[in-house]
Amino acid sequence: MGEFELIERFFKRAAAPPTDAVALGVGDDCALLQPAPGMQLAVSCDMLVEGRHFLPDVDPAALGHKALAVNLSDLAAMGAEPLAFTLALALPPERARDEAWLGAFAHGLFALADAHRCPLVGGDTTAGPLNLCVTVFGQVPAGQALRRDGARAGDDLWVSGTLGDARLALAALRSEVELPADALAGAQQRLQRPTPRVALGVALRGIARSAIDVSDGLAGDVGHILKASGVGACIEAETASSLMAAHAVLAGGNGQTDAKHWLPFVLTGGDDYELAFTAPPTTRAAVQAAAERAATPVTRIGRIEAEPGLRLIDANGQATPLAARAFDHFA
Amino acid sequence: MGEFELIERFFKRAAAPPTDAVALGVGDDCALLQPAPGMQLAVSCDMLVEGRHFLPDVDPAALGHKALAVNLSDLAAMGAEPLAFTLALALPPERARDEAWLGAFAHGLFALADAHRCPLVGGDTTAGPLNLCVTVFGQVPAGQALRRDGARAGDDLWVSGTLGDARLALAALRSEVELPADALAGAQQRLQRPTPRVALGVALRGIARSAIDVSDGLAGDVGHILKASGVGACIEAETASSLMAAHAVLAGGNGQTDAKHWLPFVLTGGDDYELAFTAPPTTRAAVQAAAERAATPVTRIGRIEAEPGLRLIDANGQATPLAARAFDHFA
Repeated sequence: MGEFELIERFFKRAAAPPTDAVALGVGDDCALLQPAPGMQLAVSCDMLVEGRHFLPDVDPAALGHKALAVNLSDLAAMGAEPLAFTLALALPPERARDEAWLGAFAHGLFALADAHRCPLVGGDTTAGPLNLCVTVFGQVPAGQALRRDGARAGDDLWVSGTLGDARLALAALRSEVELPADALAGAQQRLQRPTPRVALGVALRGIARSAIDVSDGLAGDVGHILKASGVGACIEAETASSLMAAHAVLAGGNGQTDAKHWLPFVLTGGDDYELAFTAPPTTRAAVQAAAERAATPVTRIGRIEAEPGLRLIDANGQATPLAARAFDHFA
Repeated sequence: MGEFELIERFFKRAAAPPTDAVALGVGDDCALLQPAPGMQLAVSCDMLVEGRHFLPDVDPAALGHKALAVNLSDLAAMGAEPLAFTLALALPPERARDEAWLGAFAHGLFALADAHRCPLVGGDTTAGPLNLCVTVFGQVPAGQALRRDGARAGDDLWVSGTLGDARLALAALRSEVELPADALAGAQQRLQRPTPRVALGVALRGIARSAIDVSDGLAGDVGHILKASGVGACIEAETASSLMAAHAVLAGGNGQTDAKHWLPFVLTGGDDYELAFTAPPTTRAAVQAAAERAATPVTRIGRIEAEPGLRLIDANGQATPLAARAFDHFA
């Protein structure tokens, strides 16, 4: 199977969902996109490398899902709705010959793309060590994007969904912890098939003052907001601990009853693809209404403060400095 | 040096050329682009892999140039003017520590970006086998893009600049040919620092009926136009032979006086990043005027015909079928 046949068979679909925003898709030197009038185009790209972002034996359908999901998560963090994406793919020869692998990868990729009406419009295919680079395009009304630099002292700090379960699954994969079957399945789902919070991001336009997606760990990613906005923040330890979905099971199951045991997974685990955002306390009802519209739970975990730095607050109100450090690929 | 410091030091520039089209650049979850009213956004991406697209000892400045040039060439082939680009970069740890290499790479990249007023607006950096994925964004008036499917029987077939010299340089690198110093230098320049024909692409809007950039070899890339347009073409062998810049030197120098000796390099060599385009014979003066405005020579090398397939015509008018096959990374 040659390069062009591979593209034709697995990545060029006769039935790609038509959208107004795509004037020309796969098959020319460029794709042509047409954002709606008054809209800005939001662009993000993420590169996934075998052995670093995923293991060689990863379920290819989950890999296809995740390659797009992590990019859609960046659109969500800007409040942008997806329009289209490109995929550049370096494949070792044995993968390029593995039709079952390619088919499953494409299936996982397109299932998520279709769910978000986000067609593949172009890309590149080459031989090389396995590497996936997705670039995603969305649109957001000019001036309404949720940026990192809008947080103000007094804002509430919110997060969506659950945190730390992807890191828990990694710990189980590495045999660092032993999990009951149901907790393991749930955590693995979070690691392999993260849910980009696209509807929530759109619903938070005009409400949230700043937002980021949690990919490198809550503390580090909130740190990016703090740095860009020139502010600090405190996070309530007890509330944060409760954010790990598997926490209730573990507390009952294997004797790890101390919520703090899992706190590092919540704060620095990463790979969560939830939204962290800030909004004035006067908008609490609006935030909850947006979360309901998006069918996505949100939790208020802290507060933006004028004093720089990130602090963890215990049940007694004691503050401990927290390193606002994100995952570093070269550390 | 960590990931964030690396980005800060080499890829985030205080003095990025401001443009109306970039509402938000490097440093948030997404970049925000704002094409001018009535414009469509043209998008293309190319992935370059060490050992396949370039050798480990490549001049890093040339690599930076080429990573962007091959993408700008795709914009040129659509008649789009550059707006911005993203860069995703997988670096082995030893490269991530090599400040001289990174500095030279960034210098080569940004020199070309600045020449085209095309700022870096985002990307990704990770550890992994060396891999560069550039996605480029341009704009073109709605309906005026130069597509592959617009060629009509009777159109002239044109190419810009010179063809085959990049392949000649590769042959010299592989010691398949021995070149005089000046011919070698010129050919290496073509291989390492191709010139994207952006001004020509823009000048050909409203004149050319179809266009493609020659990256995988003239025959294969013209073949893409023929397939998309449902037509055939003939190419004049003698004219094609003369398109290699080094041809005159070689004919005088090392006894390879037969132009046909170099014809395969011109027809299937690839890595040329010239434009191949078609236009009605009534527009010959307009094509030449566009080429002069763009300061880019163009040559009429053949004709689009109703009969499918690609044919080579010799000096006596004899036609030989030519495989319209492009370079295939998995062949």
